[in-house]
Amino acid sequence: MNTLATPLAHALRTGPDRVAILDGALRRSYRELALRCEKLAGMLDALGVAPGDRVAILSANSPQYLEVYQGVPAAGFVVVPLNTRHAEPELRYALEDSTSRVLLSDRDPSALAEVVDRVVRLPDEYEALLAAARPRPLGLGIDENTLAGLFYTGGTTGASKGVMLSHRNLLANTFHWMSLSPPAPDDVSLIMAPLFHAAGSNAVLANVWNAGAQVPLPAFEPKAALDAIERHGVHVSLLVPTMLAALAEEQIANPRRVSTLRVLAHGGSPIASEVVRRAHQAFPGTELIELYGATELSPLATGLRHEEALLESPLVRSCGQPLLGVEVEVVDEAGDPLPAGEIGEVAVRGANVMQGYWNKPEQTAEVLKGGWYRTGDLGYLDPRAHLFLVDRAKDMIVSGGENVYGTEVEEVLHEHPAVLEAAVFGIPDEKWGEAVCAVVVPRYEIAPDDLIAFCRERLGGYKVPKRIDLSSEPLPKSGPGKVLKRELREPYWRGHDRRVG
Amino acid sequence: MNTLATPLAHALRTGPDRVAILDGALRRSYRELALRCEKLAGMLDALGVAPGDRVAILSANSPQYLEVYQGVPAAGFVVVPLNTRHAEPELRYALEDSTSRVLLSDRDPSALAEVVDRVVRLPDEYEALLAAARPRPLGLGIDENTLAGLFYTGGTTGASKGVMLSHRNLLANTFHWMSLSPPAPDDVSLIMAPLFHAAGSNAVLANVWNAGAQVPLPAFEPKAALDAIERHGVHVSLLVPTMLAALAEEQIANPRRVSTLRVLAHGGSPIASEVVRRAHQAFPGTELIELYGATELSPLATGLRHEEALLESPLVRSCGQPLLGVEVEVVDEAGDPLPAGEIGEVAVRGANVMQGYWNKPEQTAEVLKGGWYRTGDLGYLDPRAHLFLVDRAKDMIVSGGENVYGTEVEEVLHEHPAVLEAAVFGIPDEKWGEAVCAVVVPRYEIAPDDLIAFCRERLGGYKVPKRIDLSSEPLPKSGPGKVLKRELREPYWRGHDRRVG
Repeated sequence: MNTLATPLAHALRTGPDRVAILDGALRRSYRELALRCEKLAGMLDALGVAPGDRVAILSANSPQYLEVYQGVPAAGFVVVPLNTRHAEPELRYALEDSTSRVLLSDRDPSALAEVVDRVVRLPDEYEALLAAARPRPLGLGIDENTLAGLFYTGGTTGASKGVMLSHRNLLANTFHWMSLSPPAPDDVSLIMAPLFHAAGSNAVLANVWNAGAQVPLPAFEPKAALDAIERHGVHVSLLVPTMLAALAEEQIANPRRVSTLRVLAHGGSPIASEVVRRAHQAFPGTELIELYGATELSPLATGLRHEEALLESPLVRSCGQPLLGVEVEVVDEAGDPLPAGEIGEVAVRGANVMQGYWNKPEQTAEVLKGGWYRTGDLGYLDPRAHLFLVDRAKDMIVSGGENVYGTEVEEVLHEHPAVLEAAVFGIPDEKWGEAVCAVVVPRYEIAPDDLIAFCRERLGGYKVPKRIDLSSEPLPKSGPGKVLKRELREPYWRGHDRRVG
Repeated sequence: MNTLATPLAHALRTGPDRVAILDGALRRSYRELALRCEKLAGMLDALGVAPGDRVAILSANSPQYLEVYQGVPAAGFVVVPLNTRHAEPELRYALEDSTSRVLLSDRDPSALAEVVDRVVRLPDEYEALLAAARPRPLGLGIDENTLAGLFYTGGTTGASKGVMLSHRNLLANTFHWMSLSPPAPDDVSLIMAPLFHAAGSNAVLANVWNAGAQVPLPAFEPKAALDAIERHGVHVSLLVPTMLAALAEEQIANPRRVSTLRVLAHGGSPIASEVVRRAHQAFPGTELIELYGATELSPLATGLRHEEALLESPLVRSCGQPLLGVEVEVVDEAGDPLPAGEIGEVAVRGANVMQGYWNKPEQTAEVLKGGWYRTGDLGYLDPRAHLFLVDRAKDMIVSGGENVYGTEVEEVLHEHPAVLEAAVFGIPDEKWGEAVCAVVVPRYEIAPDDLIAFCRERLGGYKVPKRIDLSSEPLPKSGPGKVLKRELREPYWRGHDRRVG
């Protein structure tokens, strides 16, 4: 049955000489890529990694990342893509929780090295080991229900969970994505968003299956991205809204030849209609697609095609309709589907739904019910099943495409002796969509900047509050003592359009 | 998880008012279609059909057939589409073997009525029962591994087998087909080939999932097909090569407006390059796609896109490359893959491979080995995995898209007292691709026409030999006494291009 070895094997059979990876002057064929993946399997065997063992990667996008993403699961191991924006305690948590044996890292792993058996530095040490390795076949000893990857969602504490995606989960999503936006064998795909994120890796398997070419961009930078689009004649890219906004502004200021660009898809966080408008102005011949999903969904649930044609329609504010193969319902607290127009929790079912959270049966049971994944997002469906999100049921802030759980930041703030009460939520931010904000009731006089510095030592940069406001009053609470964040948040959002997507 | 209830539910959610079925003046919406399928479920409940029971249909293509094809499996029953070209003994065998409870029939079932609990005549009795039925929800009590349909492959005897296709098998094929030829939500699809055949039903689920419209054509007739294409603005159709040839000739003789026609796909039997050339001449703006598969594969294995652009290439003689999700290998007798260029048996693996043959564990074990289905066809793969078929390992004749097993016809011939020896094989036929031919060594003087009449009473018309040649010599045999059919066949094929596909 199909596994992550299948798309690569298919590309090797149908287009061995086609270009798999374009990177600067590098042109790597599928024959070369397949051989390198087989050598990667042999290299990990030689390092003592056993079937089912976890292999973590901490790296910017690179040609090596693309082979690790597919080759590690295809070889029978489990890939653990780490978020390069996480601070050391967060990375350590993911490595320890997953008991990863090997860490492939393009940066000094410092204290992380002690958590794993072996660190292999990218690219030099990796390349040397690969050159010396004996290739061995992929796809053996695994089936579609084998665990392919653990994808960690935010946090150092209990809030952080390893999302278990099987080979079938990821391949189901690949077909769902292809049914929305059919790729072509000649497609050149630019990987702008980080590969450790669903937005970066979502289209990789579809492109490989079609024997198309990938251009990995190590770090998003609008000028470099547009140069790559022009140089390589890119057809497709997926990105987060903040990247799309920056890309559009750069293209309007300094136009490149981008007529090859067929699709720009975005997801991971809300998008303002103004960004869609500017993106359409910058890329008039390009289809804009909005995607909604979650890591737990491998990741796609809904899609809105030709968003640029809907600018004058209320549909532009929707996340689109369920993809083929994905069922989406809005349910009440008992899990029963609500009629169109009624707001409830978004629930999703399909072969793309994760196996569960690694070593977290209770948290798994909370979100997986009868085959349905409860997203924690609140929304409604219109009579044609367009999903409109209205809020996140979970206490989550989306900043520049990264999810931040308010509770996690609150816990860190409470570690500071000056903090009596703290509430963390998102506030509008032109660049990041939302920024992390805290309201703190102090025990004694303290400067907000000191609290921010305190957080910076303990949290990934994107989680650190951009703004901390002090309050001499106790925080507003509901009857049972729950902090009324919506009330706290309200003055910051007045006049803004708080839309989640 | 997804079942045959899913595409219809998706269409109902995303496009309730879209047209599902166009038939003459009839325009039936997805809301109406879904309600009718729910009533069909209630009607079968009321007739005493229990979950998992078989419900057979013997009918020309019709609006009702489309709802039976989806609605019976979606309601938790098993659909058994019967071949309208089969003679009574063959139909009786399929009904008895499947122990079908109900037969839906658009013709007088005569003696077949005694084999089932209940015959419901299409369309009048069916419509009356449906109108009186209470709708009940679809998709309950079934999962993706539930048996959805039994599809009988030729024959009255042991040669005839009920191919067990699960919900997952049929939906996997749907994604494979969509990855080859992406449908659009506005597609109008003309169902020209009979729905009891894979060529007729292959694209139905994809079209429904996309909430597109279907036009069922009750009987293939080139003029009526072209009129329907023009009238309804048809975009896609699947057919067998003999139909494509007739359609092309009619269009060349009496051109209709066919500019909406995006795809004409053909499969089920070999096609001559000349037919491709004529079809391209008749439909210059239409993509021609060649398909290869088998009922056991739900049915697709390979596809060749834009065949019309390959007329000057050797690739035009190929069946194309494996579809995404389908693995195709050419194997030796031990089942080991052979290198490119070497001839062996075509083997296929994927989520589309049947569960097995109904009540035939031994015959299932002969063809399903380690997840691979052995097609019985002989061929080779080129270095880019284009499949070229060279012969059928199985003793099979393909005449006008129908499979005829030589052994079955031989058994009938041997029932005649005058027949001492008989060998049946295909010979070239301009209209049907192949025609059934027999060489008979008689015990006493007999006219070939008398033998043909004898066969006609016992076999479906397409299996009856078009030609019977008498021989006074014993048939040529191999050492172990096996008739050397290839030797017998050879003089008939001299100067012809015997290609299977």
